[in-house]
Amino acid sequence: MSHREQTPLQLKCYEVIFGTETPAGKWFDLALIAIIIASVIVIMLDSIVSLDASYGDLFFRLEWLFTLLFTVEYLARIWCTPNRRAYVLSLYGVVDLLAVLPTYLSIFLPQTAPLLIIRLLRILRIFRVLRLLTLLNEANDLAAALQRSGRKIFVFFTVMMILATIFGCLLYVIEGPGNGFDDIPTSVYWAIVTITTVGYGDVTPVTTAGRAVSAAGMLVGYAIIAVPTGIITAELTMAQQIKKQRLAMLARNCTNCSTVEPDPDAHYCRACGSQLPRPGHAPETEKS
Amino acid sequence: MSHREQTPLQLKCYEVIFGTETPAGKWFDLALIAIIIASVIVIMLDSIVSLDASYGDLFFRLEWLFTLLFTVEYLARIWCTPNRRAYVLSLYGVVDLLAVLPTYLSIFLPQTAPLLIIRLLRILRIFRVLRLLTLLNEANDLAAALQRSGRKIFVFFTVMMILATIFGCLLYVIEGPGNGFDDIPTSVYWAIVTITTVGYGDVTPVTTAGRAVSAAGMLVGYAIIAVPTGIITAELTMAQQIKKQRLAMLARNCTNCSTVEPDPDAHYCRACGSQLPRPGHAPETEKS
Amino acid sequence: MSHREQTPLQLKCYEVIFGTETPAGKWFDLALIAIIIASVIVIMLDSIVSLDASYGDLFFRLEWLFTLLFTVEYLARIWCTPNRRAYVLSLYGVVDLLAVLPTYLSIFLPQTAPLLIIRLLRILRIFRVLRLLTLLNEANDLAAALQRSGRKIFVFFTVMMILATIFGCLLYVIEGPGNGFDDIPTSVYWAIVTITTVGYGDVTPVTTAGRAVSAAGMLVGYAIIAVPTGIITAELTMAQQIKKQRLAMLARNCTNCSTVEPDPDAHYCRACGSQLPRPGHAPETEKS
Amino acid sequence: MSHREQTPLQLKCYEVIFGTETPAGKWFDLALIAIIIASVIVIMLDSIVSLDASYGDLFFRLEWLFTLLFTVEYLARIWCTPNRRAYVLSLYGVVDLLAVLPTYLSIFLPQTAPLLIIRLLRILRIFRVLRLLTLLNEANDLAAALQRSGRKIFVFFTVMMILATIFGCLLYVIEGPGNGFDDIPTSVYWAIVTITTVGYGDVTPVTTAGRAVSAAGMLVGYAIIAVPTGIITAELTMAQQIKKQRLAMLARNCTNCSTVEPDPDAHYCRACGSQLPRPGHAPETEKS
Repeated sequence: MSHREQTPLQLKCYEVIFGTETPAGKWFDLALIAIIIASVIVIMLDSIVSLDASYGDLFFRLEWLFTLLFTVEYLARIWCTPNRRAYVLSLYGVVDLLAVLPTYLSIFLPQTAPLLIIRLLRILRIFRVLRLLTLLNEANDLAAALQRSGRKIFVFFTVMMILATIFGCLLYVIEGPGNGFDDIPTSVYWAIVTITTVGYGDVTPVTTAGRAVSAAGMLVGYAIIAVPTGIITAELTMAQQIKKQRLAMLARNCTNCSTVEPDPDAHYCRACGSQLPRPGHAPETEKS
Repeated sequence: MSHREQTPLQLKCYEVIFGTETPAGKWFDLALIAIIIASVIVIMLDSIVSLDASYGDLFFRLEWLFTLLFTVEYLARIWCTPNRRAYVLSLYGVVDLLAVLPTYLSIFLPQTAPLLIIRLLRILRIFRVLRLLTLLNEANDLAAALQRSGRKIFVFFTVMMILATIFGCLLYVIEGPGNGFDDIPTSVYWAIVTITTVGYGDVTPVTTAGRAVSAAGMLVGYAIIAVPTGIITAELTMAQQIKKQRLAMLARNCTNCSTVEPDPDAHYCRACGSQLPRPGHAPETEKS
Repeated sequence: MSHREQTPLQLKCYEVIFGTETPAGKWFDLALIAIIIASVIVIMLDSIVSLDASYGDLFFRLEWLFTLLFTVEYLARIWCTPNRRAYVLSLYGVVDLLAVLPTYLSIFLPQTAPLLIIRLLRILRIFRVLRLLTLLNEANDLAAALQRSGRKIFVFFTVMMILATIFGCLLYVIEGPGNGFDDIPTSVYWAIVTITTVGYGDVTPVTTAGRAVSAAGMLVGYAIIAVPTGIITAELTMAQQIKKQRLAMLARNCTNCSTVEPDPDAHYCRACGSQLPRPGHAPETEKS
Repeated sequence: MSHREQTPLQLKCYEVIFGTETPAGKWFDLALIAIIIASVIVIMLDSIVSLDASYGDLFFRLEWLFTLLFTVEYLARIWCTPNRRAYVLSLYGVVDLLAVLPTYLSIFLPQTAPLLIIRLLRILRIFRVLRLLTLLNEANDLAAALQRSGRKIFVFFTVMMILATIFGCLLYVIEGPGNGFDDIPTSVYWAIVTITTVGYGDVTPVTTAGRAVSAAGMLVGYAIIAVPTGIITAELTMAQQIKKQRLAMLARNCTNCSTVEPDPDAHYCRACGSQLPRPGHAPETEKS
């Protein structure tokens, strides 16, 4: 039963809910994005104590409205997909389920539940925002570039962690627990805050030696940001050039006057009007 | 009446005010830039309480002088442009009107007007600085590169917002309202401050778990800055290469000795002196 | 005795400990990485006062366990390597020794030793994290790119230091000791914190003049980050292009139909089936 | 007298002091760099109150030693240069004079001189560090890339200032003087601190609206850093490619077997041994 026959209604429904080619499919996606954002904003506002006191009831009703909408959508997706098991177990299916589950779970929660669990359930609902990612199909190019550079970026993060450990320990020895560098995890946290140029200022060196070593760490961190940038940029530049070269492969020279014709769909030379050779056979720099 | 005949005086005036080719047009633009900057500085200084007490009268008079100058200029632009409706409704026309309107509105403001509205009118005048943008025609190249990458940058911002929401919620759960993470909007604000490596330090994690998650967020934010940089750089590099290739298209080889001649205006080979073929027919890598 | 004959057991042991090609060698490396990370985490947790009070004994025993493991590994490396002197004096050998030495030294430390020395010995052990670097052979590409740009990056750091000195002194004169800019080293520290965009906020300008000069410094620092990024990116892009060109060098054109064949291992034209010339003789843009 | 004849002694001296080709010239430069750095460090340490109390006399004597050394060097430069007026009025000559002048001026300073002037004279001496720049001839490549992109970077700074003015004014209206945004200059200072991702945290938004607008400003600032990076990187990549192409221009094909010979100094084909054509005549992609 892994790949069922779809009824015409299911097929129509599938095109609207899963597809993006038809106008109806596009409008469905846009409406879904709007509802997700509205739902996330409601959860955010609900967490503000003063707003919760005044509009708590409204937020509660809106939350249930959104949850019911997402539930209907989730059931519709299961109903109309040709391969139910694949959808439910896919990343998208899991995220769609997580978008509604916490609200239902909150019903069964006893009044005496610890605050942390209530807060957790509330927050889990906000992971609905992840649904945006699955609707954002333009992100693929960037994700592909990141993935191709994945190994280098992993090495980069490892080197960053080693640097942060070493700088953190140096400052732990130099400044000591008296100046806010209470233990090594705190010092390593400080080193990451510094090397990434975030610089909160909640832990800062106060001795001259500590400041000198910190300054060295800052300069290293400042220069090292060039590394991931260089990796991604080289990857993206390469991707653009490959795309350009594939087009250039199809360029031809006129057999009569040698003019280059980059358009693969042209049939006649734009300079002398004689017939062009078939694209793909005579590359750009070739006279046949 | 949308495209009127201009009198010679209007035409002359139009060249000076709107044009940048004639010396008079250039001087007019430079003078205008100087007056705009002076006017913005006066508004800035006027907002300093101690200076306002001493020089309030001077600032008031200067402000009216600048406003009258801009009014005269605005009316002159309307008078001499060939298409009045188009100018008044264009972005430039609206910005030019906004540069003078707030000062006139302040006359009709009752003494009992709320402080916020007075402050708003004062500040609206500072948007005169936007007039600089309309005079800065060198910004076009950069704007074009940004526009071509617009879709990718929009995706980038969406991913940033999703990341900030998730990191903000994680810290809201971990740190809780007791440690400054009062509600989700505050936590998301903290996440944006952290991921963009701004790092004010007004809200900072204090628990070990919170610091570990923050450190992960910082490293992600630090590495992710590579993405917009890579996008813009690849775009600018590509633009430069296309410009170079257009020139290379016009390069020729000498029919006698094969020397490459990149200058499209050359008539004779710089190596052997024989006549060169016409540019555009024989591309760089071709012997005809 | 600098290059001894290895017994078969030593050879086998050498392949596992030093090599990464055999499955056993890979597992050994992975296990070693896990132990190093575990050992570093124990040292970090040990530095937290509250954890040290509760689990001090456990940490102490784990520390000795790790030290014994590293000692056995160090002795095994000396035993099985073909050139003992070279290993012991190499960077790797010194780092491996430093990973165990501090723990043994702590035995001979009198109870009355100053706190700083005890802390130093504890911290020296954390430099075990450096052993990760020697196991991370993927870092070579990045290190090579950094090394090729080394001279330019050195110039960049010198210019940064000169800029920081000048901005620091300007602020020292403008703000003076009263506003936190106590002496020139502090002011230069502030300038580095600012120019690298770290921005702790422990020392900040308060006068209008100081803020204006700082803002100029920030903009300079913000723009100057482009320089190392540009250097590294140009280096990495160049490295990728050279790799691509080496492959293109081996591309050939079919002698019959001129189709380009980029695969150096192909023997027959994929378009017309005629035999291809030998790679390396007829470059991509050539008709033979 | 603008271009005098040099005596042999002057010529010899000129080669050592101004030149970098001879070993003596190189050692002179290295010694000068060391003395400049030592001199700057002494001025820095002298500004620390506690050190000045203990070692004030030593610093005073060292300062006079360095000043005398620089004076002798300055006079020697004037004596041995072929064109005295050109050197004295050049940027280098002015910087060299500024390196010694403040110390001499301090003699004539009355005991009752205001503290600011004393501090100023002390600080002016530190601009000796600028002499390092004039000795750093490797900085030329970077300076050339920056200069070629100068117009674009100027546009970038103007856009940054306009953005900072607008964001500063928005926050001035939203937050108001009560929350640290006392006047527009302070708000613009805050905007620059934020957009450049420095983020001191001395002025931070506290209202929800202010935080939302700030977050938008941070994201804009975070993305906009891509612009100068892209400009510089495209410029450096282009410079590398032009250098590579100049070499490629000299590449030739063997007239016998078409093998490409990139080395301009080769006389015979490395593949078949036949004599190669002269470089520069037959470009890389040409068969003669």
